[in-house]
Amino acid sequence: MANSFRIETDTFGDLKVPADRYWGAQTQRSLQNFDIGGASERMPEAVIRAFGIVKKAAAAVNVTYDLNVASSEAIQKAADEVAAGLLNDHFPLVVWQTGSGTQTNMNANEVISNRAIELLGGKLGSKDPIHPNDHVNMSQSSNDTFPTVMHVAAVTEISQRLIPALTTLRDAIQAKSDEFKDIIKIGRTHMQDAVPLTLGQEFSGYAAQLTFGIQRVEGSLDRLYNLAQGGTAVGTGINTHIGFAEKFAKAISDITGYPFRTAPNKFEALAAHDAIVEAHGQLNTVAVSLMKIANDIRFLASGPRCGLGEISLPENEPGSSIMPGKVNPTQCEAMTMVCSQVMGNNVAISVAGANGHFELNVYKPVMIKNLTQSIRLLADASRSFTDNCVVGIKANEEKIGRIMTESLMLVTALNSHIGYDKSAKIAKKAHAEGSTLKEAALALGYLTSEQFDEWVVPSKMLGPS
Amino acid sequence: MANSFRIETDTFGDLKVPADRYWGAQTQRSLQNFDIGGASERMPEAVIRAFGIVKKAAAAVNVTYDLNVASSEAIQKAADEVAAGLLNDHFPLVVWQTGSGTQTNMNANEVISNRAIELLGGKLGSKDPIHPNDHVNMSQSSNDTFPTVMHVAAVTEISQRLIPALTTLRDAIQAKSDEFKDIIKIGRTHMQDAVPLTLGQEFSGYAAQLTFGIQRVEGSLDRLYNLAQGGTAVGTGINTHIGFAEKFAKAISDITGYPFRTAPNKFEALAAHDAIVEAHGQLNTVAVSLMKIANDIRFLASGPRCGLGEISLPENEPGSSIMPGKVNPTQCEAMTMVCSQVMGNNVAISVAGANGHFELNVYKPVMIKNLTQSIRLLADASRSFTDNCVVGIKANEEKIGRIMTESLMLVTALNSHIGYDKSAKIAKKAHAEGSTLKEAALALGYLTSEQFDEWVVPSKMLGPS
Amino acid sequence: MANSFRIETDTFGDLKVPADRYWGAQTQRSLQNFDIGGASERMPEAVIRAFGIVKKAAAAVNVTYDLNVASSEAIQKAADEVAAGLLNDHFPLVVWQTGSGTQTNMNANEVISNRAIELLGGKLGSKDPIHPNDHVNMSQSSNDTFPTVMHVAAVTEISQRLIPALTTLRDAIQAKSDEFKDIIKIGRTHMQDAVPLTLGQEFSGYAAQLTFGIQRVEGSLDRLYNLAQGGTAVGTGINTHIGFAEKFAKAISDITGYPFRTAPNKFEALAAHDAIVEAHGQLNTVAVSLMKIANDIRFLASGPRCGLGEISLPENEPGSSIMPGKVNPTQCEAMTMVCSQVMGNNVAISVAGANGHFELNVYKPVMIKNLTQSIRLLADASRSFTDNCVVGIKANEEKIGRIMTESLMLVTALNSHIGYDKSAKIAKKAHAEGSTLKEAALALGYLTSEQFDEWVVPSKMLGPS
Amino acid sequence: MANSFRIETDTFGDLKVPADRYWGAQTQRSLQNFDIGGASERMPEAVIRAFGIVKKAAAAVNVTYDLNVASSEAIQKAADEVAAGLLNDHFPLVVWQTGSGTQTNMNANEVISNRAIELLGGKLGSKDPIHPNDHVNMSQSSNDTFPTVMHVAAVTEISQRLIPALTTLRDAIQAKSDEFKDIIKIGRTHMQDAVPLTLGQEFSGYAAQLTFGIQRVEGSLDRLYNLAQGGTAVGTGINTHIGFAEKFAKAISDITGYPFRTAPNKFEALAAHDAIVEAHGQLNTVAVSLMKIANDIRFLASGPRCGLGEISLPENEPGSSIMPGKVNPTQCEAMTMVCSQVMGNNVAISVAGANGHFELNVYKPVMIKNLTQSIRLLADASRSFTDNCVVGIKANEEKIGRIMTESLMLVTALNSHIGYDKSAKIAKKAHAEGSTLKEAALALGYLTSEQFDEWVVPSKMLGPS
Repeated sequence: MANSFRIETDTFGDLKVPADRYWGAQTQRSLQNFDIGGASERMPEAVIRAFGIVKKAAAAVNVTYDLNVASSEAIQKAADEVAAGLLNDHFPLVVWQTGSGTQTNMNANEVISNRAIELLGGKLGSKDPIHPNDHVNMSQSSNDTFPTVMHVAAVTEISQRLIPALTTLRDAIQAKSDEFKDIIKIGRTHMQDAVPLTLGQEFSGYAAQLTFGIQRVEGSLDRLYNLAQGGTAVGTGINTHIGFAEKFAKAISDITGYPFRTAPNKFEALAAHDAIVEAHGQLNTVAVSLMKIANDIRFLASGPRCGLGEISLPENEPGSSIMPGKVNPTQCEAMTMVCSQVMGNNVAISVAGANGHFELNVYKPVMIKNLTQSIRLLADASRSFTDNCVVGIKANEEKIGRIMTESLMLVTALNSHIGYDKSAKIAKKAHAEGSTLKEAALALGYLTSEQFDEWVVPSKMLGPS
Repeated sequence: MANSFRIETDTFGDLKVPADRYWGAQTQRSLQNFDIGGASERMPEAVIRAFGIVKKAAAAVNVTYDLNVASSEAIQKAADEVAAGLLNDHFPLVVWQTGSGTQTNMNANEVISNRAIELLGGKLGSKDPIHPNDHVNMSQSSNDTFPTVMHVAAVTEISQRLIPALTTLRDAIQAKSDEFKDIIKIGRTHMQDAVPLTLGQEFSGYAAQLTFGIQRVEGSLDRLYNLAQGGTAVGTGINTHIGFAEKFAKAISDITGYPFRTAPNKFEALAAHDAIVEAHGQLNTVAVSLMKIANDIRFLASGPRCGLGEISLPENEPGSSIMPGKVNPTQCEAMTMVCSQVMGNNVAISVAGANGHFELNVYKPVMIKNLTQSIRLLADASRSFTDNCVVGIKANEEKIGRIMTESLMLVTALNSHIGYDKSAKIAKKAHAEGSTLKEAALALGYLTSEQFDEWVVPSKMLGPS
Repeated sequence: MANSFRIETDTFGDLKVPADRYWGAQTQRSLQNFDIGGASERMPEAVIRAFGIVKKAAAAVNVTYDLNVASSEAIQKAADEVAAGLLNDHFPLVVWQTGSGTQTNMNANEVISNRAIELLGGKLGSKDPIHPNDHVNMSQSSNDTFPTVMHVAAVTEISQRLIPALTTLRDAIQAKSDEFKDIIKIGRTHMQDAVPLTLGQEFSGYAAQLTFGIQRVEGSLDRLYNLAQGGTAVGTGINTHIGFAEKFAKAISDITGYPFRTAPNKFEALAAHDAIVEAHGQLNTVAVSLMKIANDIRFLASGPRCGLGEISLPENEPGSSIMPGKVNPTQCEAMTMVCSQVMGNNVAISVAGANGHFELNVYKPVMIKNLTQSIRLLADASRSFTDNCVVGIKANEEKIGRIMTESLMLVTALNSHIGYDKSAKIAKKAHAEGSTLKEAALALGYLTSEQFDEWVVPSKMLGPS
Repeated sequence: MANSFRIETDTFGDLKVPADRYWGAQTQRSLQNFDIGGASERMPEAVIRAFGIVKKAAAAVNVTYDLNVASSEAIQKAADEVAAGLLNDHFPLVVWQTGSGTQTNMNANEVISNRAIELLGGKLGSKDPIHPNDHVNMSQSSNDTFPTVMHVAAVTEISQRLIPALTTLRDAIQAKSDEFKDIIKIGRTHMQDAVPLTLGQEFSGYAAQLTFGIQRVEGSLDRLYNLAQGGTAVGTGINTHIGFAEKFAKAISDITGYPFRTAPNKFEALAAHDAIVEAHGQLNTVAVSLMKIANDIRFLASGPRCGLGEISLPENEPGSSIMPGKVNPTQCEAMTMVCSQVMGNNVAISVAGANGHFELNVYKPVMIKNLTQSIRLLADASRSFTDNCVVGIKANEEKIGRIMTESLMLVTALNSHIGYDKSAKIAKKAHAEGSTLKEAALALGYLTSEQFDEWVVPSKMLGPS
């Protein structure tokens, strides 16, 4: 019954809240005061879920200080539901709110409070026996909680979503590199014909880019493992107990399985989000790699008659209503669009990270929104690209072999036999006349047909001698 | 009944489609092949609505060529529903699809086809009597239709959403400038005390920024009025009739009320989207302006006791659970976060715009997604900022007057009376001793108390003499 | 005699200055305090020259107020030398100094003062009879002078350097479009074979991009014509006379020939540099256009044997010591590198423009440095690209014709004669078997050889019917 | 005698070269064909010096293969001079040339060849006995040499210039943190008054940012240690000998003292420069940190009368000709301008890195130019900021203590004694009436004067309890 409401209160007064939602007055107030962007601009699910993890851990630790067991258990149970994504519909706030993310922290406090009250048989909105601030938010401030959530969400999404997806793509490309290891093709530098390499060697470069990319992303995790929790309002830890920060980090590690630790300096952890900027910088590098790879693949697959045509991509959908046989490299296009978005998001995050002041950076929501979006897009696009494109790539060996053989650059092999100058004359003659190298070489009388066939052998040009 | 399906077909075969949705096989195929990003990454509503407008206009024009009246009317009626946003739930595709937007064009063709069939009493999925390609897409290609939709969406969103919102904000700031015209305050350059100005003068600078910003955005419309429609597959207009392009642009103008025209060069209109890059460049400039304004306002409102404290912002929500009296400049924060996003989106659009190849730029969806997001965010944030912040700004005249009077920079007024050197000595003495200028001046014996009071008058320092 | 010094003074004391340089103590102090980046990071020459223009105009106007004629004439003569670039070696300061550009303003004041003193037979460093502050800087503050210089430099460089260069490039491309108007070639969408167009049509798209680009840049001039001069320290115009601002703008217009005017709001003109952000946003759009054009040209020229090979570029230098016949598209590479720099500079300018505070934006030097660099690079690269690449482009008609004829997409022409389905079967058969369309068509028995030759005619596929 | 020339030749013919320069025909040809940007756009010195190192190492290794000892020694000696910067004037080429950097590689080959010839008593331009290609470039291609130079320059500049400068700045800030450890001040979140911390704690956050920043930059070195040399033209290593790559990397390590290794995949090393993108991403993060730090410092130093005024910065130069006592935070301004440039350069590098094709990325010069510029600017600005600003920062203890004491947020300490609600009433009353907390508390009768003095003690609010 969407038309049914209950009254919730905060220090500014009463507000009507939909009866079937757990959120309270502060959430409702934000909804009304920040009508910016609509539903697609809501705080990312990864952030909401991380709030569940963080609130659970805090409740578990608080029981060793000032929280009673029953309250702790109810809070933890409700928080588990948030962490599992079961209460997503109760988090309606958009990214474009207070820059500390306080309103989403209160959203989490209110939802968990009301759900815990419900579990304990109480009345929604009563704040009894579980108060959103006094109990759910105990020993916490938005100022340390939101950064903690940012790191938990970032580590989780990177570890569970991005790295597996990049690894899958890397492995698929490596498999293609192995499959194509004996296919000799023309190399291209400056887009121009150069000396040959194998198609497997070409793909090995892509695999190497991704191997490095995975290392880069993994390298950014170390500073994301630092948690701000325990710094409370300005980093001093006022209103927490000694030991809370360390116990909390331990609890988060136990829940998530990742080696989180309490941040060595809480002032840095609230006032700056350089670890987010750093992590996204690595995503930016991965985007740069993927754009190169996806571009190469679509250029190699250009054609079928009038392009390079060295490889064929899977046909996944009709290309055109009037042009049969037209296969568009749509997975490459989705990937390169994602890469351009990630490159843009990197600037958004950098501007946001640079503009914190004094004890608090107040661009937290836009930073974690861009980071989690980039992770999700890169991960999903990598899986889609792997499944719907890379695994189905086929080499057009006939075309590859034919144009490679026609290349004038094979003349390079003659340098050590007849010298650079005569080799150059052969190539220039062939280029000018449109003839083959062999025809030009024989016409010039520099070597015999047998010598040409013995010396100009692409398979001998694939490595140092 | 979400579990109920019907069979739809395309040239690749049969696919199950939810029975309660109008989309067809190509939409369904894209849904499956591009599982990237989830629901929040769907094609923006402004694009869907613009498709309704464009399909209606095409059907209206096609009746003068090859389309029968009944079909045209059914298509137009269905397209009207799309344009009105009534069928949004039938457009499930994400931005991260084919770079030509073909799949969303087909989504529109399929939905309009099935809805028109329904209106005519036919069977969904039969493509009879309204075929998605032959009738809804008649005389069109995705390659000219999607760019047309981009421009229609951009012009509409800029004109109906952004310019009114910026104008409202500008007017609110101008009203504050007028209200504050007699409040003399310290000027600050390099963040340091400088000579005085009025608070009204300070706000007049913000208003001027927005007045120029509105001009900038309006200036970008001219090239957005050019429509690609009629270029079809590569810009030549193959498979259209002579006159179609011009009649279509006229129809769009009639429907929307904006002065669209057919693009003078269709090859440019398909292969590049520089007009989108240009328009977003102006949004970027507006974001730069708004970040400056929002920063100034929150800095001026810093305090209440330990900051500049020259103005007070409306108290909209509890600032903190432990710190009463704390009002956070949350609307400024939402605004500056939006600005950082727009600055990032500008790079995404630029990278996308720079990487088109040959006859088609295939970054169309990511470009229009970023443009419409930036428009929406800037517009919504401007309204929110106006309503929840600007209109409620109050000047703290006592504080403003007190610190202005204490400023050593008022010594500037003595230059013409006692010379620069003696003035400098007064200021330096006051600075070193923490005294007032007057105390220092009298102690040095350079002038009388009466002279000081006559000559050092901030209200005479507000303009040329 | 570089080892020879004289003593110059400012309010901080004495400093040794090289005897053969006109600069004074404040310049020398900046040199010592801002040892950042080395000589290549010096303030751009366009800024120095604009200082000459601005100081000359101020001296000319000041004679109507408080400056004597002899002093005015000496200042104007010295300023002329600065404007002519004759004193560049006397401007050693780097961009990375005070954000108001005060130190370069003082550099100009000191150089002009000393040079004017010299012209009048005085002693360098004496400040007599021409004082750097009292006379050269009369009625000015760095805070209004530097923004004025930014606009004068921007307008001059755009008008004299960029627009002519872009026009020359556009004209050269248009000439190629005309030259190639009858060469029918394969169109490519998604990098894949599509329906044909002429090479002239393809180049017409590039010309259209540049025509729009020139309009864009010209459109940004209007707000650059607004001059901050007269605002002095914070925008109020303190210490200027009524009428100074307007007379000054008139003087600048007279000297330069451009329609400068005094800014309608001086507070905006000092505190924000949105006009610079806007102008660079248009350069960014031009860079996006040029990157697309340069990429297309090098892709079309790829080969000579294993690429698309539709056009040939001039051979300007040896491509490789071991690969004769290799022509690299080096002018395209220089151009696209420039474009990537401009796209980066756009972010630098945007970040700088967004971070001004209160009455003064203190990122002035980095903003004008990036703007003038982008102008210079785009202009020079456009000229180099025109002269060393575009004018020498040759169409490889044999290759263009051959691959176009092989394209399966010509089947599109049969739709209206034998229907889409039969046409599709022809294309798919040809694609699967590697045969020609005609062979497939005849094998399927859908039409006669004469019919095929009559109906499949690329020259009829180049426009609406 | 600049008017004196000699004739140099390449495969395109003869060219006049200034007689007093070592460069040859290919350098001269580039000078003429790439007249873009002028002298300030020359290839960075760090690149030129790295060429000296690389050419020396190659000559040292080649002696184990095909190069005679005398030639090797002459090349090494000439290369040493290049590495020492003695021949900088012989490298006139700009960044905006061929994207492979071939022309600068040839510039190095030609200069070293001619200088070695000179050392051996030969004739400049004779290519005898040291040929630029056959001997100086032996076993090398521009395609592997330029990327090698990029990595050598990057590692050297980061290690010798940037990390020491960042460390010096970090140490200076840490020393200030120690010095200020007992100064209790108001904390600020959202720019608004919050609970207190020490000035030392605040500065400790900046030190932590830099400690992490140094780690970030160091972390990027690992992948920069990979050298492309040995990949030659396309990555296969054609025309090198087995073992060359490994011996070369060993030689570079011996010369430089850094742990370079041969790249595990040469195809990646030529076709992509992700390691450069990654390294600059870390510079971008450092720029983000430094912008935050420099902003905080200038905001804290705002005043002297009308700002926050908590710290004073050294007075380095006259602030204004009319406003005595005005100290501008000019070092902060230089730093933040540098940061905005680095943030822009990050986009330039990302765009360039993403657009490589097939076997070669041809944006090499623009990439290394931006990387070395960012390194140089960040390093120089950090040193300047340290020496001319940070070490001289003074705390204004009286002002800090006074406003901290006035802060309403100290009421937080009463929560546990009289409850949140009464505390809130005290704060709100004080805020409304402009009174002190104590006055309000006593007026409300909630506690005694003694209790207030016992409980509200800022020094007890600086950590967990």
